[in-house]
Amino acid sequence: MMHYDLPLEELRDYRPVLPTPEDLEEFWQETLDALPDPAPSYAVVASGLVTVETWEVTFAGHDGAPVRAWLHLPAGPLRSDSLPGVVQFQGYNGGRGLPHEHVFWASAGYAHLVVDTRGQGSGWTTGATADPAGSGPAQPGFLTRGIDSRDTYYYRRVYADAVAAVEVLRGHPLVDPSRVAVAGGSQGGGISTSVAALAPSSVAAVLPDVPFLCDFRRATSVAQAEPYLELVRYLAAHRPSVPAVFATLSYFDAAVLAPRASAPALFSVALMDRTCPPSTVFAAFNAYGGPKSIEVYEFNDHEGGEAHHRVRQLAWLDGVLG
Amino acid sequence: MMHYDLPLEELRDYRPVLPTPEDLEEFWQETLDALPDPAPSYAVVASGLVTVETWEVTFAGHDGAPVRAWLHLPAGPLRSDSLPGVVQFQGYNGGRGLPHEHVFWASAGYAHLVVDTRGQGSGWTTGATADPAGSGPAQPGFLTRGIDSRDTYYYRRVYADAVAAVEVLRGHPLVDPSRVAVAGGSQGGGISTSVAALAPSSVAAVLPDVPFLCDFRRATSVAQAEPYLELVRYLAAHRPSVPAVFATLSYFDAAVLAPRASAPALFSVALMDRTCPPSTVFAAFNAYGGPKSIEVYEFNDHEGGEAHHRVRQLAWLDGVLG
Amino acid sequence: MMHYDLPLEELRDYRPVLPTPEDLEEFWQETLDALPDPAPSYAVVASGLVTVETWEVTFAGHDGAPVRAWLHLPAGPLRSDSLPGVVQFQGYNGGRGLPHEHVFWASAGYAHLVVDTRGQGSGWTTGATADPAGSGPAQPGFLTRGIDSRDTYYYRRVYADAVAAVEVLRGHPLVDPSRVAVAGGSQGGGISTSVAALAPSSVAAVLPDVPFLCDFRRATSVAQAEPYLELVRYLAAHRPSVPAVFATLSYFDAAVLAPRASAPALFSVALMDRTCPPSTVFAAFNAYGGPKSIEVYEFNDHEGGEAHHRVRQLAWLDGVLG
Amino acid sequence: MMHYDLPLEELRDYRPVLPTPEDLEEFWQETLDALPDPAPSYAVVASGLVTVETWEVTFAGHDGAPVRAWLHLPAGPLRSDSLPGVVQFQGYNGGRGLPHEHVFWASAGYAHLVVDTRGQGSGWTTGATADPAGSGPAQPGFLTRGIDSRDTYYYRRVYADAVAAVEVLRGHPLVDPSRVAVAGGSQGGGISTSVAALAPSSVAAVLPDVPFLCDFRRATSVAQAEPYLELVRYLAAHRPSVPAVFATLSYFDAAVLAPRASAPALFSVALMDRTCPPSTVFAAFNAYGGPKSIEVYEFNDHEGGEAHHRVRQLAWLDGVLG
Amino acid sequence: MMHYDLPLEELRDYRPVLPTPEDLEEFWQETLDALPDPAPSYAVVASGLVTVETWEVTFAGHDGAPVRAWLHLPAGPLRSDSLPGVVQFQGYNGGRGLPHEHVFWASAGYAHLVVDTRGQGSGWTTGATADPAGSGPAQPGFLTRGIDSRDTYYYRRVYADAVAAVEVLRGHPLVDPSRVAVAGGSQGGGISTSVAALAPSSVAAVLPDVPFLCDFRRATSVAQAEPYLELVRYLAAHRPSVPAVFATLSYFDAAVLAPRASAPALFSVALMDRTCPPSTVFAAFNAYGGPKSIEVYEFNDHEGGEAHHRVRQLAWLDGVLG
Amino acid sequence: MMHYDLPLEELRDYRPVLPTPEDLEEFWQETLDALPDPAPSYAVVASGLVTVETWEVTFAGHDGAPVRAWLHLPAGPLRSDSLPGVVQFQGYNGGRGLPHEHVFWASAGYAHLVVDTRGQGSGWTTGATADPAGSGPAQPGFLTRGIDSRDTYYYRRVYADAVAAVEVLRGHPLVDPSRVAVAGGSQGGGISTSVAALAPSSVAAVLPDVPFLCDFRRATSVAQAEPYLELVRYLAAHRPSVPAVFATLSYFDAAVLAPRASAPALFSVALMDRTCPPSTVFAAFNAYGGPKSIEVYEFNDHEGGEAHHRVRQLAWLDGVLG
Repeated sequence: MMHYDLPLEELRDYRPVLPTPEDLEEFWQETLDALPDPAPSYAVVASGLVTVETWEVTFAGHDGAPVRAWLHLPAGPLRSDSLPGVVQFQGYNGGRGLPHEHVFWASAGYAHLVVDTRGQGSGWTTGATADPAGSGPAQPGFLTRGIDSRDTYYYRRVYADAVAAVEVLRGHPLVDPSRVAVAGGSQGGGISTSVAALAPSSVAAVLPDVPFLCDFRRATSVAQAEPYLELVRYLAAHRPSVPAVFATLSYFDAAVLAPRASAPALFSVALMDRTCPPSTVFAAFNAYGGPKSIEVYEFNDHEGGEAHHRVRQLAWLDGVLG
Repeated sequence: MMHYDLPLEELRDYRPVLPTPEDLEEFWQETLDALPDPAPSYAVVASGLVTVETWEVTFAGHDGAPVRAWLHLPAGPLRSDSLPGVVQFQGYNGGRGLPHEHVFWASAGYAHLVVDTRGQGSGWTTGATADPAGSGPAQPGFLTRGIDSRDTYYYRRVYADAVAAVEVLRGHPLVDPSRVAVAGGSQGGGISTSVAALAPSSVAAVLPDVPFLCDFRRATSVAQAEPYLELVRYLAAHRPSVPAVFATLSYFDAAVLAPRASAPALFSVALMDRTCPPSTVFAAFNAYGGPKSIEVYEFNDHEGGEAHHRVRQLAWLDGVLG
Repeated sequence: MMHYDLPLEELRDYRPVLPTPEDLEEFWQETLDALPDPAPSYAVVASGLVTVETWEVTFAGHDGAPVRAWLHLPAGPLRSDSLPGVVQFQGYNGGRGLPHEHVFWASAGYAHLVVDTRGQGSGWTTGATADPAGSGPAQPGFLTRGIDSRDTYYYRRVYADAVAAVEVLRGHPLVDPSRVAVAGGSQGGGISTSVAALAPSSVAAVLPDVPFLCDFRRATSVAQAEPYLELVRYLAAHRPSVPAVFATLSYFDAAVLAPRASAPALFSVALMDRTCPPSTVFAAFNAYGGPKSIEVYEFNDHEGGEAHHRVRQLAWLDGVLG
Repeated sequence: MMHYDLPLEELRDYRPVLPTPEDLEEFWQETLDALPDPAPSYAVVASGLVTVETWEVTFAGHDGAPVRAWLHLPAGPLRSDSLPGVVQFQGYNGGRGLPHEHVFWASAGYAHLVVDTRGQGSGWTTGATADPAGSGPAQPGFLTRGIDSRDTYYYRRVYADAVAAVEVLRGHPLVDPSRVAVAGGSQGGGISTSVAALAPSSVAAVLPDVPFLCDFRRATSVAQAEPYLELVRYLAAHRPSVPAVFATLSYFDAAVLAPRASAPALFSVALMDRTCPPSTVFAAFNAYGGPKSIEVYEFNDHEGGEAHHRVRQLAWLDGVLG
Repeated sequence: MMHYDLPLEELRDYRPVLPTPEDLEEFWQETLDALPDPAPSYAVVASGLVTVETWEVTFAGHDGAPVRAWLHLPAGPLRSDSLPGVVQFQGYNGGRGLPHEHVFWASAGYAHLVVDTRGQGSGWTTGATADPAGSGPAQPGFLTRGIDSRDTYYYRRVYADAVAAVEVLRGHPLVDPSRVAVAGGSQGGGISTSVAALAPSSVAAVLPDVPFLCDFRRATSVAQAEPYLELVRYLAAHRPSVPAVFATLSYFDAAVLAPRASAPALFSVALMDRTCPPSTVFAAFNAYGGPKSIEVYEFNDHEGGEAHHRVRQLAWLDGVLG
Repeated sequence: MMHYDLPLEELRDYRPVLPTPEDLEEFWQETLDALPDPAPSYAVVASGLVTVETWEVTFAGHDGAPVRAWLHLPAGPLRSDSLPGVVQFQGYNGGRGLPHEHVFWASAGYAHLVVDTRGQGSGWTTGATADPAGSGPAQPGFLTRGIDSRDTYYYRRVYADAVAAVEVLRGHPLVDPSRVAVAGGSQGGGISTSVAALAPSSVAAVLPDVPFLCDFRRATSVAQAEPYLELVRYLAAHRPSVPAVFATLSYFDAAVLAPRASAPALFSVALMDRTCPPSTVFAAFNAYGGPKSIEVYEFNDHEGGEAHHRVRQLAWLDGVLG
């Protein structure tokens, strides 16, 4: 079945009861309080492009580890001195890429921070940010690293880095801190949603595309493609750890965190998405705390709306951020 | 075997004897002589981008059929009035896409014409150009349409459209006609090479990436992925037509046409390319008539060098076109 | 799941609400009115067989384009001078084949017209009929050619050719025009059903096996194999065209047309059919306007009943046509 | 969907109505009555191990054909003279293996009889027992051999051999005949369950893991992997034999036989098992006649609980057999 | 690589040294001497066809076991009283099918005996002939049954049945015994070749298409599809039996037997055949003892020449048998 | 091709020129010198087995990180007080498993240390040892972690842990330190070979089965299955890093290290091994510095000789260690 998940009418009402850890608030408060001053450094980069100006940015993330990003700005003659901004998080296994790769938002007039995901960046785009933390026995991949405990789980570090990245862009002299959006597809969509929940006062708009990291229990039950299957294989091997693993994940589930968000959001979902099952996306969307809408791509797999959705996002974001 | 084709040392010397039809010159002379005045029309388009200006272009191709393209220019404040140009042809099944999709060359300071391939554009990017010609019984796909005869073969129309596209960009008032390159990946790489051979005086540089449409006989023997397999299936069904099919293809084989080219060329090849086998790429490269170099991506499949190669191309083209 | 579609009890009641275009009647009336005189020509062919006599038939189809067929008759000593007839349409990607290939119905005493599908015939059997019409950007394959509009859609031409073919066989001097059946598997089954609806007074019996071209919306949602997936890929690329595409298809959906048919019909369906999902077959069967029965093959994929069903069909048709 | 079968709550209540043949009792009575004296012969074997003593056992099975097994005992200094016993049946396509391969139960203090499945043993472990009976046309594999009739069906011989094997172990001078369990995974689990039903007074405990040979009708409908698909292919070819085949199978379905069993049983099931669908396992478990429990492995495919389940089984069996 | 085997020039010279058992002659002499009088019985069958007359034939094969076949003759008015004949052996897993299925040769004027392969016939066509002999542990499939010894090997029985079938057709009153050919594709091609070698004075012509059962050692090394892989899996499990298995196979290898044949032969081979690698076909062809030619299908997989080759065969056989 | 790699005769002579880093000796000297006192702790474990006694062992590995292992000994009554020993390393993604899982060598009379691989153990068997070190951007998996530099490369830590493990077993009061072998399959085979080279005076015999981590350059070129493909994907993404990656790997290539080994070795290789290509195994075997033999499994994939090879190993090791 191409439409292997619930029919659209049921998806629109799909609101699973996802247990929220009692100390969720506290856990994240502590985690974010421990973030150091990001102290970004900037170095201009020759990307070869004449329409966009690019700086390499390095800032301190979780535990002070250096995180790498590109800052793209429209070329001098084309920009104002108080730009709206977009912080973009990457899909699984990708990185910020080369300086000329992701310039859509800057070409559209935004200050655009393209942030690495620590330890990732050896797939479709490359990264330059290490994850200094190791882990217990894990499946090949990132999804089960440190999953024994909420404290050591990989995405704790990733989410904290992401919150820091938002502060970096908001602190840039050419950026209007009240008009910074977060965006990303797949893993980047999950991170965006979670950041909107963890730092609601810093985020002015949210653009999660076909988000990953939502409703883990259902995801492991119905996903048909990597990387949720990493979890399945981990649980297949560590049979007695099933409850503990889901307990850890409940601190990082974007569908659990989503009610805490308040910024306007434009989601997208693809109804033939085998990687991020549409029900898991609707779990997050339906739980999302702010004003929201969702673009449904009926015949798409995980590629979702692609260029068509970029157009939709740009119009929407121009509207929201004025 | 990941490296299923010849080893690199043998590839560098791979020069198959490919029969050149006696009337090759004549056939193409007639075909191109029959091209109408392209008579391009221009309509400005709101792509949402502020750094690049985009026009929709419609021009007359083979048999006068309308062909669609985008013309991207760097935004007014950033451009001179005599720009170098790049005409880009598309990969198989793709189209020119949406106005904001392919803006690399314009962002890098070039006038950039992104041209549809007639009848294609329902895959990874969309097109807007019809192919009014039908065909005899053909495999699903484009590779065997009209293959009964050189006169009706699909790529006759495509190559002629491509030559017309070069003239369109050369004729634009903001473009320096002596500095127009042709470029493309996969099918676009095969078209680029053939256009360089068919219109050598119009093309100042050639950038074929992992080109398709080269050394068809070997391609049908060793390719491991679509679309060369369309040919295999066609020949499997039309057993008695094998000689006739290869006779038709000899008029369109970029490796047969390549000696007629004279512009400097930068090729790329991927040694694990299952779609366009490296030997077929080297067949074209080794036969190519102009100054040339080739970038070898040892561990890549058909994606080739991607963003890394864009950087390499930009530096090379800046050098060649001054 | 091998039985991935609805359970048999639900299939027997599956009657989706499929929107019928208001001008369906008119559209087809105009299309068929425009058919030229088929003006068949006959040329005897040496097939090598001694029990069956074969003529090559060429007749004028839609827009006057020549359509090719074989006419098989039982050898002279074995036949009467007023034969019952069967017009057979082909499966997707096939053609009429070689003269000795499809002689079942003639061997069983029928006049048998084996008709090409224009543009097809490079797969499991070969064809000899061109489709002179081109198309806008389409997926490789036939299912999305000209799908922008009901007027240019590929199956408009195919259905019109099929109606003409029925008239050809009915007009043959050795054939009893009141005893002509239409038959075919997969695409041929869809065409048979539609022809029975479009030319109800010309068709005396209908034999659709595992028919294609039924209930397109569900087909795109549940089919697991080609060629319905061509539609899925087209819709994935042309995201904004989804409503327009289904509007076009509603003129050609055998399940929409089926209520207009009145001849007795023997359908077949395979419950593990991944190519033509059983629900889509039942959509057409349950909507069919004439007397009807259906043979259910519980454990078959798209091959359906094969030789077992031929026996069943022959007995049934002998009964219906007396 | 990874969890492609029913949800766990529905599985726990899944009790299909499976027709029990009227003469089921009689058929098996006659079959078992016809078993010859097993007359086991023993020959000590040098396995290379020092902790386990191994004998090759040959006994007479159905029709007197010789069946091979290994008898493993804890080394002399470590054992009592009245050991509890485990008879282990093999998974599909496997055999008793080499003398040192399956020594878990002997290492844990049990007398352990590892029995061949006649005609099998050319897969993951090897066997040494022939099946002298041929068959009518059958699918490659064992599941459809002799399926024309309950009398000639392959598993009639296999189940009878299995009952004989239990008597062999019970008759060994070092074994306590009141404390003999039967065990096995997949095919071995189906055989164990059936043996518990066919020889209830000989079996003291039952350990079926992810059992095969249960609820054949559903199995053919939902299984996603071999060997149930042998049945699907057989039924696809022998279309008219569908009722006869299921009639034969009803004599051998462990879910039909299960109510006749009375010994305590510990089942296991894996909820992502594509080979032995969880519903078919629950069909047998829910129908099972004795005291019972089932270990559910939520994220496992056909490997089930593996080493984790061995630990669970050992503790349970130590408890049951005292 | 689509052309994964040797290039055609090397195939034409491929003559592996295949060890011929010293007692090959004796073994087969004994085997064939032991054949009982085939004593065929005939029963007319209503196939539904009017152009072909069909009888069910049962004759005694190896060990006297009954073997089933269909005898097709052109309908009475169309035939002479001394017909040339064709005995057709089946592909792996197929059977004689239904009475109306294989009527090409009878439709072309030949007496045509379509013979079952014992134990097979649950695949693409069905059979009705049992193999009463069992076997030691074997892989699912037929290729390793009884492979422990030349005496018990499955194909000993099959080849003997095939020789008996030739005598059956030669003994029919309407058949000219000096004009009987053997034919078949895949397994049927291997059997045909071996029968021509084992009964050279009974066979007037041989038509092996893409034959199986040739040059087993190379086949296990290069084949890419079933059923040669059954042998690979058997040898993978029974590691110490490798030499013994190939010793058994040397008595049945069509490439070992081929030099003993003397009748004219028309082979076919497909250069992309993953099931019966082209080198193994050429091993038999190059060793074949009689006048011979081979049709090469350059772009086909195991389907080979299909209908195109039927035409070629008919012309050739008409020529050879006059 | 099942035998996709070189033919056996060429494998026996396959001796690639693999560059040995100048400071290889130094690098490893420093690495091993930095190993802390392993300081093993022992805790007895109730495995449920009565024939084998098991202790959990924790010792300090590279950088002092705790490494977990099981020590299995034959039960008290069955053992001497100066046992020969085997240290076993695990295959990729596996761990030491549960206490009762790997007891072959102890059952055969050896002291047996089953050692975790840090960070692994979520696959076919589980582990309990963390890898505290993180890494730069890496492919999912272990093979590219820290590959930027020999100092941070993952296998530096793994090899050092392995050397420490040998010292742990040699230091056990019941073990004869002059009779300790190292063994393992796949990754465990690569580690065994490397340990024999890095600690030649501590190792009395080596048993590498189908070893991984040999001749990386060829492995990336011909391997057909994971995990070598992790390297291919990494190199495909990090195009400019190709030389640096192979420079790092040259310090860890078992085929580069092998000449430094001196203990007798029994290798195994499988000629259809798609995971560890036979040429890469022969590269290590042919370079190995001590007395050696190799068991060739002609028809096996990566499973190699399995139980048959255990028998062979036991006989060989009994011979070597007396």
